[in-house]
Amino acid sequence: MAYVEESSFERDMSYIPDRVLVGARSGDPLDDRFPSGSKDSPRDVKVWPVEPGRYRLVAAKACPWANRAIIVRELLGLQEVIGLGTPGPTHDAQSWTFDLDPDGLDPVLGIHWLQEAYFNRIPGYERGITVPAIVDIGSKAVVTNDFPQITHDLFFEWREHHRPDAPDLWPADLREEMEEVMQRVFTEVNNGVYRCGFAGTQQAYDDAYARLWTAMDWLEERLTARRYLMGDAITEADVRLFTTLARFDAVYHGHFKCNRNKLTEMPALWGYARDLFQTPGFGETIDFDQIKAHYYVVHTDVNPTGIVPQGPDESGWTTPHGRG
Amino acid sequence: MAYVEESSFERDMSYIPDRVLVGARSGDPLDDRFPSGSKDSPRDVKVWPVEPGRYRLVAAKACPWANRAIIVRELLGLQEVIGLGTPGPTHDAQSWTFDLDPDGLDPVLGIHWLQEAYFNRIPGYERGITVPAIVDIGSKAVVTNDFPQITHDLFFEWREHHRPDAPDLWPADLREEMEEVMQRVFTEVNNGVYRCGFAGTQQAYDDAYARLWTAMDWLEERLTARRYLMGDAITEADVRLFTTLARFDAVYHGHFKCNRNKLTEMPALWGYARDLFQTPGFGETIDFDQIKAHYYVVHTDVNPTGIVPQGPDESGWTTPHGRG
Repeated sequence: MAYVEESSFERDMSYIPDRVLVGARSGDPLDDRFPSGSKDSPRDVKVWPVEPGRYRLVAAKACPWANRAIIVRELLGLQEVIGLGTPGPTHDAQSWTFDLDPDGLDPVLGIHWLQEAYFNRIPGYERGITVPAIVDIGSKAVVTNDFPQITHDLFFEWREHHRPDAPDLWPADLREEMEEVMQRVFTEVNNGVYRCGFAGTQQAYDDAYARLWTAMDWLEERLTARRYLMGDAITEADVRLFTTLARFDAVYHGHFKCNRNKLTEMPALWGYARDLFQTPGFGETIDFDQIKAHYYVVHTDVNPTGIVPQGPDESGWTTPHGRG
Repeated sequence: MAYVEESSFERDMSYIPDRVLVGARSGDPLDDRFPSGSKDSPRDVKVWPVEPGRYRLVAAKACPWANRAIIVRELLGLQEVIGLGTPGPTHDAQSWTFDLDPDGLDPVLGIHWLQEAYFNRIPGYERGITVPAIVDIGSKAVVTNDFPQITHDLFFEWREHHRPDAPDLWPADLREEMEEVMQRVFTEVNNGVYRCGFAGTQQAYDDAYARLWTAMDWLEERLTARRYLMGDAITEADVRLFTTLARFDAVYHGHFKCNRNKLTEMPALWGYARDLFQTPGFGETIDFDQIKAHYYVVHTDVNPTGIVPQGPDESGWTTPHGRG
């Protein structure tokens, strides 16, 4: 993700909005048949065909927005159909980089800086070089980095390639309420922790903290009455909340000053987070060392020393959650 | 306190070592009859007489070393005998200041910067302008800022003025073991949290973190078997540990990256800390807002934004501790 720093943090939500769609032919314009999920409507928007082996999901394990796509790919069983490239946690000023791979190159794309794939799509691309990104392997060009659209389309457009027992992450009968819940989780929690951490004034921070904890208390109450956000089954809404909760005590609590309580002090949320962590597709995508390295090293304006904390003790994540 | 910043933090332990002693005449040299408690032996050391109303204890509530003297003064009932001046939490580059007092002046000493009282004792004094300091009201000159000696002497030299039921903070039969415990608490915990927070390299931090938590585990075990550090009664050793524990979750956990666990996650230590907090003389000297303001505002090299966290929730301090 890219950050825009002002006294109150605002996220730049303009992305490359190409989409991979069932029935599309490569290079088709994104017309009324395929409405864009983004608010902006750039002139140069294209659609791409669903095609196993054609695309690479580039997603750093450190990044909560990228982590969503990694989890959805796992849950839906798309690992053989869409490969995964994983930049390391501490990108440089230029771009996320494949510094953990042999010779510092993604083994499939053969590039070091993810920026190269952005430039292949839009020469001189000036917005943030963000993950997750879907990259067309043949042209080494970014197809889209529109993260909510990416997980949406992995579900709706790639159905033919899902594993047989893939969960219904977008149940039609819950869709309306789910959109409301996801919107509140996005603005108040997923983005709310950043609003605390990147506040430029005490007042902006105080306001952000109040908003965050109002939402955390709402979630605590909601998850006291329900196993998952939408009821008895895991949905996309849970994926979206989980990647923030997994980072809460490790980075947001201290680094972003979201410190009224640790997640471990919120009984329902902590039980819920462990329940998901222990569900195949979730916990194995979490790398606490990469998560901490990312935030504490990259944000030199918040943590000028770049020293990464040893804590917290994360052993509680595998303890019995008592839910279900 | 003053800080010396290197890759591994080392505290400057040279202080003005004058002492207030029973039987001393003002201006007497500190000779063999009155051996100095400090390692350095400056030529210009004097002794001062015990005399009610003559001295002012200057002690910022924010500072853990000053907080010790505030607590000991309370426990021994010396409030009417030695006045208390309280600089605000966010001193400037020059000195702690009396910015919370009317017109920004200490009502008894009539000074704004504590530095003035240091200069009255030693013109051009170049070491840190630290609290606690004992100031001679008549000459407005610092007598001593040697913090371990200050609390020691409040007990041994001012006995005549203690309240009748004052606790025996230095029981003779426990003195030897107590000195060992206090030394370990000082180097590993009181100072250990600063060693984590002011580490200049990842390696120095990692080493400091390991030392701190080894000591915290030792204390957790010791306090599982004992109500107080030395057994069934409160001693100076408890005062010295308490002022660090009171700041642990509020600042050391996040700001200094002492974040394996919160104090609230260490059952014996947390029960012990609440037990003391709820004992007259302890809890009422703790001002969490001043504590947080001090560390988060003054240490711009650790927290460049100067934003002070709203958390943690401190309501647990007054809950039943289940000890004794």
